[in-house]
Amino acid sequence: MSAYRDTRPPWRVALGNVIFESDTRAGRAFDLLLIVLILLSVLSVMLESVEWIRASYGGRLRDIEGAFTLLFTVEYFLRLVSARRWWRYALSPLGFVDLVAILPAYLVLFLPGAQYLLVIRALRLLRIFRILKLTRYLSEANLLTSALRASSAKIVVFLATVLTLVTIIGAAMYVIEGPRNGYTSIPTSIYWAIVTLTTVGYGDIAPKTGLGKALASLAMILGYGIIAVPTGIVTAGIAREQARRDAGRVCPNCGLSGHDGDALHCRRCGARLPDPVGGAAQGVGE
Amino acid sequence: MSAYRDTRPPWRVALGNVIFESDTRAGRAFDLLLIVLILLSVLSVMLESVEWIRASYGGRLRDIEGAFTLLFTVEYFLRLVSARRWWRYALSPLGFVDLVAILPAYLVLFLPGAQYLLVIRALRLLRIFRILKLTRYLSEANLLTSALRASSAKIVVFLATVLTLVTIIGAAMYVIEGPRNGYTSIPTSIYWAIVTLTTVGYGDIAPKTGLGKALASLAMILGYGIIAVPTGIVTAGIAREQARRDAGRVCPNCGLSGHDGDALHCRRCGARLPDPVGGAAQGVGE
Amino acid sequence: MSAYRDTRPPWRVALGNVIFESDTRAGRAFDLLLIVLILLSVLSVMLESVEWIRASYGGRLRDIEGAFTLLFTVEYFLRLVSARRWWRYALSPLGFVDLVAILPAYLVLFLPGAQYLLVIRALRLLRIFRILKLTRYLSEANLLTSALRASSAKIVVFLATVLTLVTIIGAAMYVIEGPRNGYTSIPTSIYWAIVTLTTVGYGDIAPKTGLGKALASLAMILGYGIIAVPTGIVTAGIAREQARRDAGRVCPNCGLSGHDGDALHCRRCGARLPDPVGGAAQGVGE
Amino acid sequence: MSAYRDTRPPWRVALGNVIFESDTRAGRAFDLLLIVLILLSVLSVMLESVEWIRASYGGRLRDIEGAFTLLFTVEYFLRLVSARRWWRYALSPLGFVDLVAILPAYLVLFLPGAQYLLVIRALRLLRIFRILKLTRYLSEANLLTSALRASSAKIVVFLATVLTLVTIIGAAMYVIEGPRNGYTSIPTSIYWAIVTLTTVGYGDIAPKTGLGKALASLAMILGYGIIAVPTGIVTAGIAREQARRDAGRVCPNCGLSGHDGDALHCRRCGARLPDPVGGAAQGVGE
Repeated sequence: MSAYRDTRPPWRVALGNVIFESDTRAGRAFDLLLIVLILLSVLSVMLESVEWIRASYGGRLRDIEGAFTLLFTVEYFLRLVSARRWWRYALSPLGFVDLVAILPAYLVLFLPGAQYLLVIRALRLLRIFRILKLTRYLSEANLLTSALRASSAKIVVFLATVLTLVTIIGAAMYVIEGPRNGYTSIPTSIYWAIVTLTTVGYGDIAPKTGLGKALASLAMILGYGIIAVPTGIVTAGIAREQARRDAGRVCPNCGLSGHDGDALHCRRCGARLPDPVGGAAQGVGE
Repeated sequence: MSAYRDTRPPWRVALGNVIFESDTRAGRAFDLLLIVLILLSVLSVMLESVEWIRASYGGRLRDIEGAFTLLFTVEYFLRLVSARRWWRYALSPLGFVDLVAILPAYLVLFLPGAQYLLVIRALRLLRIFRILKLTRYLSEANLLTSALRASSAKIVVFLATVLTLVTIIGAAMYVIEGPRNGYTSIPTSIYWAIVTLTTVGYGDIAPKTGLGKALASLAMILGYGIIAVPTGIVTAGIAREQARRDAGRVCPNCGLSGHDGDALHCRRCGARLPDPVGGAAQGVGE
Repeated sequence: MSAYRDTRPPWRVALGNVIFESDTRAGRAFDLLLIVLILLSVLSVMLESVEWIRASYGGRLRDIEGAFTLLFTVEYFLRLVSARRWWRYALSPLGFVDLVAILPAYLVLFLPGAQYLLVIRALRLLRIFRILKLTRYLSEANLLTSALRASSAKIVVFLATVLTLVTIIGAAMYVIEGPRNGYTSIPTSIYWAIVTLTTVGYGDIAPKTGLGKALASLAMILGYGIIAVPTGIVTAGIAREQARRDAGRVCPNCGLSGHDGDALHCRRCGARLPDPVGGAAQGVGE
Repeated sequence: MSAYRDTRPPWRVALGNVIFESDTRAGRAFDLLLIVLILLSVLSVMLESVEWIRASYGGRLRDIEGAFTLLFTVEYFLRLVSARRWWRYALSPLGFVDLVAILPAYLVLFLPGAQYLLVIRALRLLRIFRILKLTRYLSEANLLTSALRASSAKIVVFLATVLTLVTIIGAAMYVIEGPRNGYTSIPTSIYWAIVTLTTVGYGDIAPKTGLGKALASLAMILGYGIIAVPTGIVTAGIAREQARRDAGRVCPNCGLSGHDGDALHCRRCGARLPDPVGGAAQGVGE
């Protein structure tokens, strides 16, 4: 990265600092303003969807949304212009979200109703973590993400088992209860099986026959029990990740590892511990 | 605190001891009486809300509630008078709850129906922990609170993710199912998304189209899975807090507590720690 | 116990061995027969409650139930007679269940419908653990019970918080939605709040107004989140209890404790470990 | 196994390698093709169950299903023929599933509707783990299975308690609410109790009387609380299994694995263990 020479003219560098950084005063103010604008924009989309509000203020709300879209489009181009390497920004997850957050407004010309998809702008609100105590939240988000990633193989195994299970239970219920009792097809029955196994239980479809109720009972107890599995997976993952983080430093005197994150001295020999290398927060934040 | 000279006349000190303390006999009796009165008061509000009871005993119940309100108002002023520093009590959480527990009764003069808000008095029942084996329960409540506080950043990240998720799922369902199928507006659809993701599943609104059912299935499996995350966060937090408490030794030099069970030196100042008195087992049995 | 002289005549001792013990062949056979009889008895009560079965076989089923009741009554008296000290048996939990399992059959003379309470006999099925690998299951049941008991103070704090919460949410919903929308009284609203907070979500009562839906959403997210708390409490409790059990033995050579339950040798010095004192299973079984 | 002489002619050995192994190129291609065929087959069964699709394409879909069945039947016989010992394959779980996945197609001659049971073919999809990074997923599936097996006694105790509980709560509700309010029989009431305790909450049956609502509230809080128990059991089991696996060293004398990270001697035979190769971190990364 340092090998890449920054050839941007000074005004683009200055603009980039305001838009992309949040540790200068101007940068923070810009981010804060952005959050407020996004919130207002999402709110106006929501309000427009309420019938009586649309009847009275529909035109005005659509104007406001148009203005927001214009604003966010300008912002997007400014980001492209001021980024050190515009293609890196455009292809990053954040850049992708920024683009997706303005597209539906233009899509509406071809597809009526598309404007409601603008609530995807809500995704941009996650930028808020960049403002309030940035590193701490990012570090926690990172711990969660690492824990989930480390457990991903287990989670895939679990999900595959659950999907196979609901397919078979769904088909069995279709045979047992049949279209007469609301199980109109196997996909619908699978939908019911998911509703049941996840303990959501809408009740829009429910077994009527004795045999169906028995199978449903089995599915419920199964679902009640197997929720323990992802919980166990994630909990063990978080505990492990946390322990690993706690353990990150080694005593230079006696070699003991596994010190608490806030420890300054070795708990066995009392020698001064080195500072966390780069700090736990930094090692994670970027 | 010790620097503040207690200038209250003796009768106010005596009154304060009865009202605020629960380790003297009079103090315990007062607290016990209070609990019973609060229970009766909440009960009478509840009873009044039941139609056939209100029809027959409405007048009498309202009289009783009036009497309770009077009593609790007097109690509030006695607390103000006998407190060492009245403004500290008035601004403390307990003092705030005590005030809020009598206000609705006066609000009813302007706002009919406000009397039902008197059940907020139920909050005062939490005083019960002050009576029965006070310290033990408070200590456990403290452990839970510390564990939750230590995990608060993780919980905020999790909640923000969930709220963004339900906003986007809700808007998508509004576009897919539309007002025809009960998804009358985006806020209503978000309400449905929360009902689904939390696995509550009332069924007052449920998807009718195939695409809607597919998206709902996704949301349910997601909700079923991500409940594992807060559980993992809290479990890891409690386990860590408990382990730290089990350790339970205090540094003779700097006063830091919460050392690991096998620590020989303080992790902050490096001073030699005292031997665990009686070992880890005792530290736990208590 | 050994100080108490057994003055029972030999036939009572022999009878007691068959009825109370399950390690002789006769004892096991007796226990097995009992399980089968209890199962049949519970089944016949269940069948009688199904209308079309009652219409066709009601009389016969009632005869069968009468026979079972007679049998269990005789068994209860035999237990009293053959117990070493009859009052100890009569006052023990098992003795209490045995009594309760026959009483409804006699109560039916005064209270029609009471015979259905006979399903309480199902409780006696828990005796089954005495037969199949007795000690192992008892030991596990005991681990669960100890973990729950050790966490009981935390659980009480949690339950008290939840109950206060549902009372206040319920009353607020009564004020917001009112009898018009199904929230006919505060107790009913509290019932709704419990249905919501526990994520059961029948949907027999559901909010209709916008404000009500907003409060309900809050309650759901709260309920979704706080389920993490009891889970965390119990998980940490089980893990701790398990660790304690694993740690039960100390190396006679180097004094290291914390050996796995199945370890034969010390993991530090390799010395032979003492056998588990009385065995982990025994220490718990009684 | 090595003692058993392989007497198959070369063509059967070659065929067996393609069909049963997935580490040669031909084997992988065969497995991949199989997955695709199974997916298509399950899909066609699902589609046939949707009414309007059946009306238009029913005949064609049935032809396709027939072709798939023929194909899978041929595959089954090829497996029998090329297996080293055909009876071992036929009696293995995988062989059983393979058989069950074709039987319903022939059953349909006697039992209309049986063809929908063909979705049981979905079970064969679990073969997919054999293809994509086989060992890693199998290893995780194994960890989950070991954790569950180690906790099986606890889970049995838990399930027995839950089943007893729902029986008694169900019967009590039958007595309290009765057939008038939808609780038509004890089995139906038990079904309701399971729906409630597992927090599924369809709402097809819901208490109407005050006493019923009170008992239901109790059941819900109970269900909300005791879900913590299986979660705790499984979490503690996974954490323990993971820790043991992390340790990952094998005794050079007796071959026992699963030693604690700081163990120097085998816990079974007391032999000196090799030093952890590269430390705990590697043992985990893999």
